[in-house]
Amino acid sequence: MVDGTTLLNAARQLGAGLESICGGKGSCGKCKIRIEEGYFDKYGISSSVKSTATKDEVNAKFINKQQLKQNYRLACQTHVHGDVVVFVPEESRKGQQVVRKEATARKIKINPAVKKYYLELKPASLDDAAGDYERLQAALEKQYKLSNLAIDYPTLLEMQKTVRKGNWKMTASVWKNKEIVDIESGDVKKSYGLAVDIGTTTVAGYLCELTTGEILATESMMNPQVAYGEDVMSRIGYAAKEKGGLKRLNGAIIKGLNQIIGGIIKKTGIKRQDIIDMTVVGNTCMQHLFLNINPQYLGRAPFTPAIHHSVDVKARDMGIKIASGAYVHVLPIEAGFVGADNVGVLIAEEPYNQDEMLLIIDIGTNGELILGNRNRLMSSSCATGPAFEGAEIRHGMRAAAGAIEKLKIDPKTKEVQFKVIGNDKWNTEDKKIGARGICGSGIFDVAAQVFLAGIIDNGGRFNMKVKSPRLRLNGKGEAEFVLAWAKETAIKQDIVVCQKDIRAIQLAKGAMYSGARIMMKRMGVKKIDRVILAGAFGSYIDKTSAAVIGLFPDCDPKRVYAVGNAAGDGARIALLNVDKRDEADLWARRVEYIELTLEPEFNNTFTKALNFPHAEDKFPSLKNILP
Amino acid sequence: MVDGTTLLNAARQLGAGLESICGGKGSCGKCKIRIEEGYFDKYGISSSVKSTATKDEVNAKFINKQQLKQNYRLACQTHVHGDVVVFVPEESRKGQQVVRKEATARKIKINPAVKKYYLELKPASLDDAAGDYERLQAALEKQYKLSNLAIDYPTLLEMQKTVRKGNWKMTASVWKNKEIVDIESGDVKKSYGLAVDIGTTTVAGYLCELTTGEILATESMMNPQVAYGEDVMSRIGYAAKEKGGLKRLNGAIIKGLNQIIGGIIKKTGIKRQDIIDMTVVGNTCMQHLFLNINPQYLGRAPFTPAIHHSVDVKARDMGIKIASGAYVHVLPIEAGFVGADNVGVLIAEEPYNQDEMLLIIDIGTNGELILGNRNRLMSSSCATGPAFEGAEIRHGMRAAAGAIEKLKIDPKTKEVQFKVIGNDKWNTEDKKIGARGICGSGIFDVAAQVFLAGIIDNGGRFNMKVKSPRLRLNGKGEAEFVLAWAKETAIKQDIVVCQKDIRAIQLAKGAMYSGARIMMKRMGVKKIDRVILAGAFGSYIDKTSAAVIGLFPDCDPKRVYAVGNAAGDGARIALLNVDKRDEADLWARRVEYIELTLEPEFNNTFTKALNFPHAEDKFPSLKNILP
Repeated sequence: MVDGTTLLNAARQLGAGLESICGGKGSCGKCKIRIEEGYFDKYGISSSVKSTATKDEVNAKFINKQQLKQNYRLACQTHVHGDVVVFVPEESRKGQQVVRKEATARKIKINPAVKKYYLELKPASLDDAAGDYERLQAALEKQYKLSNLAIDYPTLLEMQKTVRKGNWKMTASVWKNKEIVDIESGDVKKSYGLAVDIGTTTVAGYLCELTTGEILATESMMNPQVAYGEDVMSRIGYAAKEKGGLKRLNGAIIKGLNQIIGGIIKKTGIKRQDIIDMTVVGNTCMQHLFLNINPQYLGRAPFTPAIHHSVDVKARDMGIKIASGAYVHVLPIEAGFVGADNVGVLIAEEPYNQDEMLLIIDIGTNGELILGNRNRLMSSSCATGPAFEGAEIRHGMRAAAGAIEKLKIDPKTKEVQFKVIGNDKWNTEDKKIGARGICGSGIFDVAAQVFLAGIIDNGGRFNMKVKSPRLRLNGKGEAEFVLAWAKETAIKQDIVVCQKDIRAIQLAKGAMYSGARIMMKRMGVKKIDRVILAGAFGSYIDKTSAAVIGLFPDCDPKRVYAVGNAAGDGARIALLNVDKRDEADLWARRVEYIELTLEPEFNNTFTKALNFPHAEDKFPSLKNILP
Repeated sequence: MVDGTTLLNAARQLGAGLESICGGKGSCGKCKIRIEEGYFDKYGISSSVKSTATKDEVNAKFINKQQLKQNYRLACQTHVHGDVVVFVPEESRKGQQVVRKEATARKIKINPAVKKYYLELKPASLDDAAGDYERLQAALEKQYKLSNLAIDYPTLLEMQKTVRKGNWKMTASVWKNKEIVDIESGDVKKSYGLAVDIGTTTVAGYLCELTTGEILATESMMNPQVAYGEDVMSRIGYAAKEKGGLKRLNGAIIKGLNQIIGGIIKKTGIKRQDIIDMTVVGNTCMQHLFLNINPQYLGRAPFTPAIHHSVDVKARDMGIKIASGAYVHVLPIEAGFVGADNVGVLIAEEPYNQDEMLLIIDIGTNGELILGNRNRLMSSSCATGPAFEGAEIRHGMRAAAGAIEKLKIDPKTKEVQFKVIGNDKWNTEDKKIGARGICGSGIFDVAAQVFLAGIIDNGGRFNMKVKSPRLRLNGKGEAEFVLAWAKETAIKQDIVVCQKDIRAIQLAKGAMYSGARIMMKRMGVKKIDRVILAGAFGSYIDKTSAAVIGLFPDCDPKRVYAVGNAAGDGARIALLNVDKRDEADLWARRVEYIELTLEPEFNNTFTKALNFPHAEDKFPSLKNILP
């Protein structure tokens, strides 16, 4: 351990699960710990643990005077200079994130980039001086009308042995009718490819049989880069400022993907060498880090990415352990903050083939929007803030065991029913439910339910006239509403929603709504025919809650669809159908990207969108639901 | 040192220069040494040195009984089991080979595969969200009408930094209008490429400025693979049979080329990264070993090469230390024994653009022949044996200091005049000339001169009626002719030409001649208009000597040209003109390869061709010269 490293870093290096959403910037307050042992001098600073807490106003936000006396600190702001014993409170313990990236059943036309061709070569003889490669070419030409193919260099090195082993009968894997990327002895029918979705938080890999499209295995994990920052901006900062930061971030994701591949191999019994193609989607930052390109320029104006276009790189050049000749196809991105994941949604949902006016919302730390149909397509991105991911929400957390994912409030009694991840029962059935916080889908429910129950007004203010023991003022005189009593939790304290939480939700949904509104205005669109909610937890969101808080302009709730991890589906579609790759490049370029912050009307539109569901707009489709 | 290793291997590992042409098979007899210290048991075999000499009839060819008593052995047949002191006679000492691979002045149309384009990119701004790669593509399209270029992966990783360093002004190196293989900040005009000729014995590299074709530096060295076998067959055997043999042979040539590149960098002051293209020629075995393909199948019927076609491989994938994005272009081969070096001759001499009937002879251990003109082209290869390289000739040696390279015999007095490499004077001017043996060009002169002087008859037999102290019978009663008296040599013994040497030369030239004759017959050609002698020592051969011994069918000596290292010139032409690469692939395929050993008339044709100059054929062009 380097002297002077932060407690957060030390915990990471030791593999101790300490919560952190901001990645060590001292802005999320999730990594609060208590120092148990260590000498403290008169300034309250230990000679072995030096905390910047007392000096730094950042800490004042999260640690009050009493806690400071009890030696509570933010782990990310505390530097270790010797041995120390630390207590990690329950709420700072990192839960195992529940990975919610199941593949969606979709009908996909099968036309993979890599196809296998069984070949019977003319055996070499004294009166036929042709080389093995020329025999292979001749067979490809004669049997399949394929000509002038290049050959992968390491594949060439193994060719003669393989060809003879199979007694001049062999199977060639050909990439895009251009290059022989693998050869095997004899007749090999099955062909495998891997579609990968690199999310900021979660990484998922789908092993597909390339001739049928069947998903043979799904494997997922937390993005190992989370250790270096939980959101995109923290990772950009880490890559830009830390020495060796890019190398570490790239190394983490490559290692992670190799683990995913290892898991898939174990599950299915196929060999690494059998995986002959791979597609990858991810937001612009993930795309950069995966490609080992420093995302530093994404972090400052004018937020220029290195490359929009799709990239084909040999897996071996990236350190990805699949067939040595295989290519990794990284899907294109649309803009600095509209990444390949959004392009995945694009080719999965094909708004460019629809007559209906579609609004596609990809919910994450960064909201991504696509509006349009076959006539015109627009995209934009808005900084929703991390509220929907659980950060900047007092009891927000990621989708891990104990997170409240569904919640209902009785409009009359104001009593609360909720369900946590990892427990099929509601708190009304199981009092020992052990809630630890609220995750994304729960946050949507909380906002919608407190609004529908009249606990907050449409401006988001708590209505103190409501009679309920759950509505109260805290020590600072601020209103808060108790969602779970301490006895129902694992953290031994009440889980509440406070005024600041409501404000954060308002900012997030307001940004999303005004983005859609501005795009509609630019396109001259009055009404949206269909809303598609995408994103890792998109399919867990209650559509009505989303509509009630005003996440998007009015749309018939029957026409709101949650498509789950459409980005991952996009990766799978591009894996199974090579034409979709061209489609992705084409539409990633054709989509008109609107930089919302440059729109003069943004502030005005945004302000009106902060109300629940909106200050002016009517929602005829919700007339039976809204108060 | 491994116990039981041969003395030859031990010498190699210690870097001691011990002569060996056969590569340790006991068939050339060049590595004769005398054991000075070491215990010998009653069988004449030391406990520390075990020689198979007494048992092995191989040795009997080279070591007589008296020498055996004096503890002479072949180093390659003697195994070391302990400390030993060895004397290396002068004739077994390896001289520094004189590398004769100067580039020939040729007019080459300049159109390199890699071209540099100076670009001024539109700087990134908030209202232009394009990525750097897209800006680069836009500038290439706008300024040079180049579109849809791929980009080398490591080049992509450095792009943003480079572009910003040059303040959006940059130079892109584009390979074949397909791929951006390097980018540099600012306006860079000079562009460098390396043409490489990998000979079995010698490797040469020519650094060229790609926009002018100027040769800036030439660097050459012995092929470091010589340590593992001096001829092609020994190296094939080494790769096929020795564990790790291929790896060692490939590693040796890659390391050697990196040394050549290092030398060029030192001479010229350019950087490795500045070398942006490279072309390579070599015979089929050298091509395989350079590409790291096991040449094992070349060594046994039906002698199938892995690939005929040219290959483009990233330099970094081969371990070649030039620009990381650069490709190495390996020229195509024609057949198992007609390699890329011959293709080099082909595109340098362009017989396919000539009306005249051309015969191109590439002299080496393996003779390669091309016959034809614009109407038809044929090639063949014949096993000339290593006589022209100095092996299997009693006093043969490679072109090193002390080798007799020119020789004349007075037809009346039978007195001999000769010149050795490393001394500008003839032996008649400098008695201390220090001859050590006879190299290739000298061997041609010896054969022609003993024939013209009547010392041998046209059947190659010594005419013992000739009165000269130089013509004598040796201890075994075999005729020999003294070329250099012991006092004129560095090896303190007479240098002679013996009956066996003459036979070896007859076999070599007979094979070449009959190859040409069979091709002429197949093509229906009566007369050759022009003969081109190529090969590393081609330009040192006396054209008349070659004609007199009957190396090729009758041709006006004025129309015989020695073009030197045409193979290396071919590499340089392909480096400087990308269209010549396609031409090489086209003609390497179009040339009809004739397997001479399969021709039923070969034996008969060959037998007649053993005579000087031929048993039947007339040589009207030589009527003033022949006896």
